[in-house]
Amino acid sequence: MTVFRHDFRVRYAETDQMGVSYYANYLVWFEMGRAEYFRSLGINYTDYEKQGLFLPVIEAHARYYLPTTYDDKLTIEVAVSEFGKTSMKFVYRILKEDGKKAADGYTLHVFIDRARKPVRVPPEVLKKTPIASLDC
Amino acid sequence: MTVFRHDFRVRYAETDQMGVSYYANYLVWFEMGRAEYFRSLGINYTDYEKQGLFLPVIEAHARYYLPTTYDDKLTIEVAVSEFGKTSMKFVYRILKEDGKKAADGYTLHVFIDRARKPVRVPPEVLKKTPIASLDC
Amino acid sequence: MTVFRHDFRVRYAETDQMGVSYYANYLVWFEMGRAEYFRSLGINYTDYEKQGLFLPVIEAHARYYLPTTYDDKLTIEVAVSEFGKTSMKFVYRILKEDGKKAADGYTLHVFIDRARKPVRVPPEVLKKTPIASLDC
Amino acid sequence: MTVFRHDFRVRYAETDQMGVSYYANYLVWFEMGRAEYFRSLGINYTDYEKQGLFLPVIEAHARYYLPTTYDDKLTIEVAVSEFGKTSMKFVYRILKEDGKKAADGYTLHVFIDRARKPVRVPPEVLKKTPIASLDC
Repeated sequence: MTVFRHDFRVRYAETDQMGVSYYANYLVWFEMGRAEYFRSLGINYTDYEKQGLFLPVIEAHARYYLPTTYDDKLTIEVAVSEFGKTSMKFVYRILKEDGKKAADGYTLHVFIDRARKPVRVPPEVLKKTPIASLDC
Repeated sequence: MTVFRHDFRVRYAETDQMGVSYYANYLVWFEMGRAEYFRSLGINYTDYEKQGLFLPVIEAHARYYLPTTYDDKLTIEVAVSEFGKTSMKFVYRILKEDGKKAADGYTLHVFIDRARKPVRVPPEVLKKTPIASLDC
Repeated sequence: MTVFRHDFRVRYAETDQMGVSYYANYLVWFEMGRAEYFRSLGINYTDYEKQGLFLPVIEAHARYYLPTTYDDKLTIEVAVSEFGKTSMKFVYRILKEDGKKAADGYTLHVFIDRARKPVRVPPEVLKKTPIASLDC
Repeated sequence: MTVFRHDFRVRYAETDQMGVSYYANYLVWFEMGRAEYFRSLGINYTDYEKQGLFLPVIEAHARYYLPTTYDDKLTIEVAVSEFGKTSMKFVYRILKEDGKKAADGYTLHVFIDRARKPVRVPPEVLKKTPIASLDC
């Protein structure tokens, strides 16, 4: 199993006056998906930050297919689709309870040190993270 | 002048524990830029919503070049780069106070009615909005 | 059991540059606690909104005792401490994984109709919701 | 003039499906008001953080009188109503464009060092900040 799945509910705070989830929140959900995925792989991102290693986003992309709304039970699917020397790419799908795709997207990240200099992907991350794709 | 500019300050709420602006907030700033741009063109988006016309995002993209942080005075540049029959595309740049580019991106939108059916771009919007590009 | 408990994780988006959860997010968590509590009682708030009945906040209060940070597993405790003719009061506690209190607070709400006129608490809500207090 | 005023627009991101500004965002606006007020007094909060002095919120309160909505031009009034040895209290009012009060509230803060130990209010802050109240 190389595609990770995590369920969550849309919060009232995440809706807007159009009555649907505000578009920027999908990036927050992507981040929540990354965190839960790392946890499931036994990777402790917080420890990396304590050691001075950070993983900021350098590119983000999202496509929106179906609106989601308050209290919807959604599933986020997360996979890592590729590694560069200092970078990694996450891909995501947000599914509605009936399995229909609400959104998909990706984020590209670079590992950096405290001086914001790119550094190699930690061996532990390379070793523990399978490469997979999502049918987006 | 076809590129619109709007200045704003990074809020404390918009930072994260990395000490920089959280990546999803750039999409909130894009939206703020769109709103201010429409206002400057004499287009009242709120009136369109009251008439049952909405302009949701169907695709969003952002690239991050330089971190921004609390209280930074930033400038967002906004332009409309193209119209489709029912769609329009906004392009953005976020500049730091020294003029360096912190981020850029685009959003693609479709005009829909209350039933979420795509409808033609309103003539007023076509007429009042110049087509322009940003050097991204 | 009149005190409801719900577990959640602090998101990266919810931290700020002080390295802790931003204070306004506790109100978002209070709202998430209310939603989960209503669900556990078999009350469907979304249905009420569809019928034109809303439950906005008219007063909110929070006290912060201990910082919480990214990825912390927190527990929110929720109870309803009183009903008025048209109003109800929720009380909350946010606990850290070791059981220590990170924050507490309350929100006061009024049921209103589409014209924003206060209306009586729905009998279903009165019937299904126990009155309880939290040791704050 | 001891009451500071700052104008701002409600963002689309700040609305919810009730069609009004989400209640937690008022605390974000309070924080924006504090930041702008400090700036107007010539106090650089960012410098304090760089020196290891922080001003977290230990209590927050808000009352909501009138809804505000997307694109509303609002005014936040900010004053400092009292100092303790290590603490200070801000009071706020949010006014609609017609001058009507949408919300008011307060936040209580404590100055702390990197070890989270309370420290005395910096003399510069005491000297530059007038004590005032808002007619709430």
